[in-house]
Amino acid sequence: MTAALRLPPPLEPIRPEMVQVAWLLQEMAKKIEEPLGSMLRSILGGGKLLRPALVVLVGQTFTAPQEPLHDLAAAVEVLHTATLIHDDLVDEAPIRRGRETLHMSWPAGATVLAGDYLLAQSAALVAGLERPILLKVFAETLCTMCTGEIGQMFAAPEEQFSREMYYLRIEAKTASLCAAATEMAAMLAEAEEPLVAAARRFGWELGIAFQIMDDVLDFTGDEARLGKLAGSDLRQRLVTLPSLLYLEQSESDVVVRTVLSGPGDGEHVQAAIEAVCGSGAIEDALAMAQAHIGQAQQALSQLPDNVPRQILHSLAQYVVERKR
Amino acid sequence: MTAALRLPPPLEPIRPEMVQVAWLLQEMAKKIEEPLGSMLRSILGGGKLLRPALVVLVGQTFTAPQEPLHDLAAAVEVLHTATLIHDDLVDEAPIRRGRETLHMSWPAGATVLAGDYLLAQSAALVAGLERPILLKVFAETLCTMCTGEIGQMFAAPEEQFSREMYYLRIEAKTASLCAAATEMAAMLAEAEEPLVAAARRFGWELGIAFQIMDDVLDFTGDEARLGKLAGSDLRQRLVTLPSLLYLEQSESDVVVRTVLSGPGDGEHVQAAIEAVCGSGAIEDALAMAQAHIGQAQQALSQLPDNVPRQILHSLAQYVVERKR
Repeated sequence: MTAALRLPPPLEPIRPEMVQVAWLLQEMAKKIEEPLGSMLRSILGGGKLLRPALVVLVGQTFTAPQEPLHDLAAAVEVLHTATLIHDDLVDEAPIRRGRETLHMSWPAGATVLAGDYLLAQSAALVAGLERPILLKVFAETLCTMCTGEIGQMFAAPEEQFSREMYYLRIEAKTASLCAAATEMAAMLAEAEEPLVAAARRFGWELGIAFQIMDDVLDFTGDEARLGKLAGSDLRQRLVTLPSLLYLEQSESDVVVRTVLSGPGDGEHVQAAIEAVCGSGAIEDALAMAQAHIGQAQQALSQLPDNVPRQILHSLAQYVVERKR
Repeated sequence: MTAALRLPPPLEPIRPEMVQVAWLLQEMAKKIEEPLGSMLRSILGGGKLLRPALVVLVGQTFTAPQEPLHDLAAAVEVLHTATLIHDDLVDEAPIRRGRETLHMSWPAGATVLAGDYLLAQSAALVAGLERPILLKVFAETLCTMCTGEIGQMFAAPEEQFSREMYYLRIEAKTASLCAAATEMAAMLAEAEEPLVAAARRFGWELGIAFQIMDDVLDFTGDEARLGKLAGSDLRQRLVTLPSLLYLEQSESDVVVRTVLSGPGDGEHVQAAIEAVCGSGAIEDALAMAQAHIGQAQQALSQLPDNVPRQILHSLAQYVVERKR
């Protein structure tokens, strides 16, 4: 797994550190009883490692000690993986990162417990840092993620198609953990309060932009690169920013509403993708993502000016230019 | 909720402390966003409060400071509630404590997230104690609970009917958290290591006896008192100690095996309950529970001799004499 780490290009300068984080994840998984251990070894560290990279880079910007920084990075990735396992079960998503999701081969009950196990492991990793304030941020982040997602599930139908609800969801799903990652890294390095706040703001805005791009790529991306079916959000009847912007300007639309209101087959989904992509909604969504990246880079400029900060700047730009 | 706390009789002397713990739980729930907040207010603190009582009493035995002790007690009950929510979803249990379980009225996804939220809250409560070692015990306990339950789910069919597998399950389900409760309470009070180990042993043995009794009451108990259907384990095709002991001595049995191997209707379940109850298996199971309580009381005798220890002694006896 570690030999084949598929890092986003801006992270190449910190490949050795990311290999170390991936190694920590694998070592943790090796100690887990079977069959959970094998399963988690095949899942952990298999993504882009964006969140642990944020921890490592923000920590380096403030010259945090390396060993606890890597532990924190691993903890954040473990928490992220736990929430993915539960989210994929909740959303009945069949594929993630080009692989079958856990609940497709495991019973739902075991899948719930596998996620719980990782939640506990991530807390244990943070507890090992012996800085209770980090654990408070960590736990509160998970609380925010849960209440945000639950709030969205219980929203009235008319609210589902609002920008407010869209932002609530992506803040809960992505921005809150990215913000916690950068905030905790700054805290670990004992950065001063205004700098901790700037680090948090950077992670938050970057997280929002990252999720908007994910939602755009679900319309425009190449299936092989994405590791999932195109239009998978539409297939799950999930309104994301591109379809939301399209619907805002297309009151007479039938094509997209048909897919969102019922079990759309492949042909209908394809027509809906084309309608959204031909409407200018994608360009508008990209502009919004770019605006959040601008905010992120502004917050970043308050951090000490050094090589890790330059890498974070490039990473932010990559987030809105990536193809997968 | 707090006014109507239904405490087991031996806990009456610490009713004020238990009311305080229940109040902490309600205050926590009040701060949670809707609809999760209302839902959790109706669930939290609704059980026997055995685990938080173990924390309070063991802590008192070692004269631990009151405020953090109550926070720890609340944290343990929150963790317990989180695992119940996930377990009831996994087991598709319709009723708990005389009420419909959460997943019966909420979507499965929101139920998973509600459990996750409580896991995070319990970690936050322990983090607030600013004693990282407590959080390590806490997180490792949840890990043990998860791997134990997963291990049991993946066990081969021939293993399902073994005492080994039964013990593995009840250790994961009940003993590990009771042991963590008493261990952490002793740690919080800065008790010396051999006494921490004795406290842990007490909780462990008491937890095993408690679960055996729960499994016995599922055969012999009064439905109104239990707050669930009698024979609910059999209905879920779950082998517990009474049916296990019965099967060990009844090789030619058809009645119980029929229920355990397929969707038994009410009549078959009733016949199976009667077969087990008439076989001496209940008496054997009770004797085993009593033996574990003997072990628990022996461990308890190593703790300082005072009023809280006397209450723990009575509580241990109550565990195997209770009717609900």
